[in-house]
Amino acid sequence: MTVETMPSPVRLKAVAAKGQPDPSPALEQLYRGFESELLVPLWTEIGDLMPQNPRSKAMPHLWRWDRLVELASEAGRIVPVGRGGERRAIALANPGLGGRPFATPTLWAAIQYLMPGENAPEHRHTQHAFRFVVEGEGVWTVVNGDPVRMSRGDFLPQAGWNWHAHHNAASAPMAWIDGLDIPFSYYTESQFFEFGRERVGTVEMTTPEFSRSERLWGHPGLRPLSQPEAPSATPLLAYRWVDTDRALTDQLALEEEGHAATLSPGHAAVRFTNPSNGRDVLPTIRTEMHRVRKGASTLTHREVGSSVYQVFEGTGSVTVGDKQWTVRRGDMFVVPSWAPFAARCDAASDSTLDLFRFSDSPIFEALHAHRSQVGDPA
Amino acid sequence: MTVETMPSPVRLKAVAAKGQPDPSPALEQLYRGFESELLVPLWTEIGDLMPQNPRSKAMPHLWRWDRLVELASEAGRIVPVGRGGERRAIALANPGLGGRPFATPTLWAAIQYLMPGENAPEHRHTQHAFRFVVEGEGVWTVVNGDPVRMSRGDFLPQAGWNWHAHHNAASAPMAWIDGLDIPFSYYTESQFFEFGRERVGTVEMTTPEFSRSERLWGHPGLRPLSQPEAPSATPLLAYRWVDTDRALTDQLALEEEGHAATLSPGHAAVRFTNPSNGRDVLPTIRTEMHRVRKGASTLTHREVGSSVYQVFEGTGSVTVGDKQWTVRRGDMFVVPSWAPFAARCDAASDSTLDLFRFSDSPIFEALHAHRSQVGDPA
Amino acid sequence: MTVETMPSPVRLKAVAAKGQPDPSPALEQLYRGFESELLVPLWTEIGDLMPQNPRSKAMPHLWRWDRLVELASEAGRIVPVGRGGERRAIALANPGLGGRPFATPTLWAAIQYLMPGENAPEHRHTQHAFRFVVEGEGVWTVVNGDPVRMSRGDFLPQAGWNWHAHHNAASAPMAWIDGLDIPFSYYTESQFFEFGRERVGTVEMTTPEFSRSERLWGHPGLRPLSQPEAPSATPLLAYRWVDTDRALTDQLALEEEGHAATLSPGHAAVRFTNPSNGRDVLPTIRTEMHRVRKGASTLTHREVGSSVYQVFEGTGSVTVGDKQWTVRRGDMFVVPSWAPFAARCDAASDSTLDLFRFSDSPIFEALHAHRSQVGDPA
Amino acid sequence: MTVETMPSPVRLKAVAAKGQPDPSPALEQLYRGFESELLVPLWTEIGDLMPQNPRSKAMPHLWRWDRLVELASEAGRIVPVGRGGERRAIALANPGLGGRPFATPTLWAAIQYLMPGENAPEHRHTQHAFRFVVEGEGVWTVVNGDPVRMSRGDFLPQAGWNWHAHHNAASAPMAWIDGLDIPFSYYTESQFFEFGRERVGTVEMTTPEFSRSERLWGHPGLRPLSQPEAPSATPLLAYRWVDTDRALTDQLALEEEGHAATLSPGHAAVRFTNPSNGRDVLPTIRTEMHRVRKGASTLTHREVGSSVYQVFEGTGSVTVGDKQWTVRRGDMFVVPSWAPFAARCDAASDSTLDLFRFSDSPIFEALHAHRSQVGDPA
Repeated sequence: MTVETMPSPVRLKAVAAKGQPDPSPALEQLYRGFESELLVPLWTEIGDLMPQNPRSKAMPHLWRWDRLVELASEAGRIVPVGRGGERRAIALANPGLGGRPFATPTLWAAIQYLMPGENAPEHRHTQHAFRFVVEGEGVWTVVNGDPVRMSRGDFLPQAGWNWHAHHNAASAPMAWIDGLDIPFSYYTESQFFEFGRERVGTVEMTTPEFSRSERLWGHPGLRPLSQPEAPSATPLLAYRWVDTDRALTDQLALEEEGHAATLSPGHAAVRFTNPSNGRDVLPTIRTEMHRVRKGASTLTHREVGSSVYQVFEGTGSVTVGDKQWTVRRGDMFVVPSWAPFAARCDAASDSTLDLFRFSDSPIFEALHAHRSQVGDPA
Repeated sequence: MTVETMPSPVRLKAVAAKGQPDPSPALEQLYRGFESELLVPLWTEIGDLMPQNPRSKAMPHLWRWDRLVELASEAGRIVPVGRGGERRAIALANPGLGGRPFATPTLWAAIQYLMPGENAPEHRHTQHAFRFVVEGEGVWTVVNGDPVRMSRGDFLPQAGWNWHAHHNAASAPMAWIDGLDIPFSYYTESQFFEFGRERVGTVEMTTPEFSRSERLWGHPGLRPLSQPEAPSATPLLAYRWVDTDRALTDQLALEEEGHAATLSPGHAAVRFTNPSNGRDVLPTIRTEMHRVRKGASTLTHREVGSSVYQVFEGTGSVTVGDKQWTVRRGDMFVVPSWAPFAARCDAASDSTLDLFRFSDSPIFEALHAHRSQVGDPA
Repeated sequence: MTVETMPSPVRLKAVAAKGQPDPSPALEQLYRGFESELLVPLWTEIGDLMPQNPRSKAMPHLWRWDRLVELASEAGRIVPVGRGGERRAIALANPGLGGRPFATPTLWAAIQYLMPGENAPEHRHTQHAFRFVVEGEGVWTVVNGDPVRMSRGDFLPQAGWNWHAHHNAASAPMAWIDGLDIPFSYYTESQFFEFGRERVGTVEMTTPEFSRSERLWGHPGLRPLSQPEAPSATPLLAYRWVDTDRALTDQLALEEEGHAATLSPGHAAVRFTNPSNGRDVLPTIRTEMHRVRKGASTLTHREVGSSVYQVFEGTGSVTVGDKQWTVRRGDMFVVPSWAPFAARCDAASDSTLDLFRFSDSPIFEALHAHRSQVGDPA
Repeated sequence: MTVETMPSPVRLKAVAAKGQPDPSPALEQLYRGFESELLVPLWTEIGDLMPQNPRSKAMPHLWRWDRLVELASEAGRIVPVGRGGERRAIALANPGLGGRPFATPTLWAAIQYLMPGENAPEHRHTQHAFRFVVEGEGVWTVVNGDPVRMSRGDFLPQAGWNWHAHHNAASAPMAWIDGLDIPFSYYTESQFFEFGRERVGTVEMTTPEFSRSERLWGHPGLRPLSQPEAPSATPLLAYRWVDTDRALTDQLALEEEGHAATLSPGHAAVRFTNPSNGRDVLPTIRTEMHRVRKGASTLTHREVGSSVYQVFEGTGSVTVGDKQWTVRRGDMFVVPSWAPFAARCDAASDSTLDLFRFSDSPIFEALHAHRSQVGDPA
């Protein structure tokens, strides 16, 4: 069947509306001509296509960690891990995006679950990925033959086109979250994928405390001269919680000592960066950890592009657009493009409110399309 | 109505397939849990989301220039131009993209039409745009108060967030094509738009032969010291056919003299670039003019990302994926991501086959995701 | 003989001065110890080494074109051109720089002279060079086999490590100026040099009107797709006077029409740039053409780094630090680092005052050390 | 006195030599003309100015640490520290550079010495600087109000135009080395200098274990979101020995485990980098720490530009051009441009041979003039 004989997917209807021509038989005939030639006029679409500012199809939404773990654990019991399905990963599907496994128009966010002794087979893809561990330990990710330990609070970036597999060396199951740019790659149609070995080698199944990448690149401000440049993604495969926690603690302490070190009073934040160039760890995904002191709030902020957050620790309330939720450890939520966001740590929280965040900002910065606004949008 | 009470858009069905768990009551129950929590497993989607190479939803398709002009001309008779509709622009709707006015997943391509004496009102938007003139003259685009003549063969880039309007100062209608990154901005939700003045000033309605931008920036290799840096988009508002034609003619002449000047035998090509930094004229859109000598062919080529072509002159045949068409002046066609493309100029063509091309390559280059392949993919 | 037994070049004298220790026998003994160990204390040198702003060793100085041509012509009669001496080039020796052939601490400026039928042999070196033609024609520079015509007003950059030779195809001698970064390379000890063929080939001895480089790269805003990237130096080997003149004429005309196009009233200027990236044509040398309208003046300006000017056309007066000269076609002068500079075109000049300038600014910009100041320094 | 009446510094002598014109009365007369007009021909100078590869005026030379400390200590007794002299710093004067306090044509290297309770007054300058501590502790450098502890093995960069002072809070004197680009700034005439406060404030006289800069920027791969970009020099003011030592130890351990982690067998090395962009800590100075395993050697290496080394620990032998020395803790030596360099750690050394190195490589890399060669130059 050729395209010419397919029914046209274009459907045009003449309506009385500002900026649109008056309905008439001639207009109807014109529209039938457009349809048969696969054409659509700007004047019927401009309001949707060119709004005054981004109006996201994605909706603010919250997923509770206990439900995510409950369902993942059930999947652990009945869904095997292996070649073909590749990973026991379960993705957040934004209610505004038609049932697709897309947390936002550009970002994939999933809970991944591995039973004791299980192996997720090796593959590689051009989609950029990371893992973040809100609780548990015992799994190693093997990246190009380098086993990387995963423990609570650790952040593990995984740049596109690197071979990787997972193995659970512990006696308990483990859950963590994956972030990828799958929706962006899918929409822009730029993906490549390859299967790797069914089982990685014995050496790669070892469980060292520190990966080789950390021993080479994990020393502050020190570049190993033997290693090549790494312009497009970080060569450091693990950012450990001990470092992240200390950096945030130092910022709040400096603030107390009277120095400029926080984004706003009581709000500390670090970005995970590629030590070889100081830029985002992945070309398409920005990752950060935010800490809000007990009783403090962030400023309201909005920006072009979307984010996904996971609560790492503490309790508090977050506001996204016209939604507000009380949140606790593990909860995940979405901030759509240009939606105002603010967070507050409960005065009675057990700890500071620590929020892991990832967003698609590097895409917009690379294309000179980034915009942001701090303060009340009204 | 809150999200929680909306019916979930997620629909999951257990099927027997490689990499998927065996259907069972437990699995069905798990899937109902996923649906109610707005979750989708990777294992049911991986084939579609993570193919071995890009499999475009967009289809190769050809639009004939005579039909485009015929319908645009009819629209000229019955559809007014003014505030609200903004432009008499009629967009190509790729048959694979569900009736949306998207030539490819990232690119908008339209024919725009202006009657004698008509004015298209001023506005600005973050979407990047250009005009290319396959025939006719008499319209001026006014960019930030600088009137820019449009004549056959001219290429006029229009970077985002510049005020612009059009006026037809001639006694005949004029058609040209517009290219924009509307689909990309729409999908990534990064658009801003503002209405400008209803009518631009008298000075701006003049019809100078050369715009001020050309008088400042249109001299080869010469930067005007009074002008600021222009990193994100070209300050040169018109690339004239006389220059483009001479560059292509020179390349073919150099090839005949025995020097390396063409992409392959008989295939000359130039890219329109920002004179302030040598990069693409727009952050998201690459634009080029290709010339194939009579009887010669291009090499077969494919790359990540999509392109739209318009035939500027000559007759020939083009192959896109499994499609092949005979083409002539004005015809437009789409090359989807990773689809092999080749063109051949008829030995009996009146002239070389000149092809104007635009693509989304700068997006992928900025994100380190570009790939291309020259030669037969088999 | 070893270093240890050489007499030390260090000589230290205890003097009574602010910031210096009081002379005493103990100090004298300390200084003898310093001398024998090849040591020099900061406190005797800081005033010279670390002044409050640059105090150039170079002096403002003017060389008259008629005397330069007269001596070059005499050299043409008695000094042969050939291998070993390589070029009949005669360099400006700044009176503050100890008799070395350095116009400034970083820049070489010379008049080169070639008799009818003469050939300057092929060589290459890492020093960056250019030619500028204030009068005459008939010589071709052959760069990597590409013959480049030299005519009045033309600017010809010559990036380091390209093979090059000259041949005079005319019946008259010809003089032009050479600019290079020889002093900078000499001081930083970074030079490489190779001899080429004694005679270039027959094809290379032809005298085409336009070089291949111009046919590939000399079209405004158009990049030839067949050519590789050229990040470190321009691929365009000639910037023709017709283009430079038109650009300057356009700026003054735009100013008259009421548009911002000049550096200051009556002062137009363009920079010669690498069309592949919009940056300076050479990594170490900036080159510009300035035009001052009859009766107009430039603003007073000073900057880190040194410049050499040559008057291309017109008569006027220039002020450099505490010097002032009346200048005319061909005259060359030096502006030392941080010395204020201004120029004025005589109201009775035959033409605008056109000044060719080259400077070492790219060095300081690349190292984040550039500073400039516009207006009266007092 | 005007320049015109000064005796010309140019002296030209006609000699019989390859590439030079034959001596003759006419040539003598021409040369007198050149002298009076301040001109120098290329043909008498080309051998010196344009050698086939860099021939450094600087000589390989070694300074013994015990003698440096002895003389600095004597200076501590009789030379006060204060405004005017600014610092008790004693510079290495390369025997090939005419008695100037220049270790190489571009680099300054000095021993600085501060008695208990002494303060070096605040100033700032555009010259880039660093301190490196081979032994001792007790001094704090105060940079823009941030006190930075100095202890054995620590590296403290000090980018241009930051206010800084020193205070010795201990009961013993302390010596360390300073590296700056004073000769480069001096030759290129790009220096600015300002005096600061006579005494810094009380808060700044405190002696915290870690500077604020380290608490903000000293966490591996983590960028503090509150801090601005720092493109031209590192915001991290101390690189602690514990980190440097661990990075080098890890490289040698990885090598033993069979992984590529060293420059060559037994030779580990790290570069100190700006964490905000991964580049050199200073725009003009590269700094590195090298470690050679007992009994191992580095490869022979040469490059454009000069280096200064200080032995941090261990004993061994180094070869620079035609010189060879046995070295131990604190010894300093110079490697001129393009001179081959190699080091060997004694098999009987108490420890690995640890070498601190600084060089001017960033200058050449920024200007696309870097070249290097590994292996025996013959």
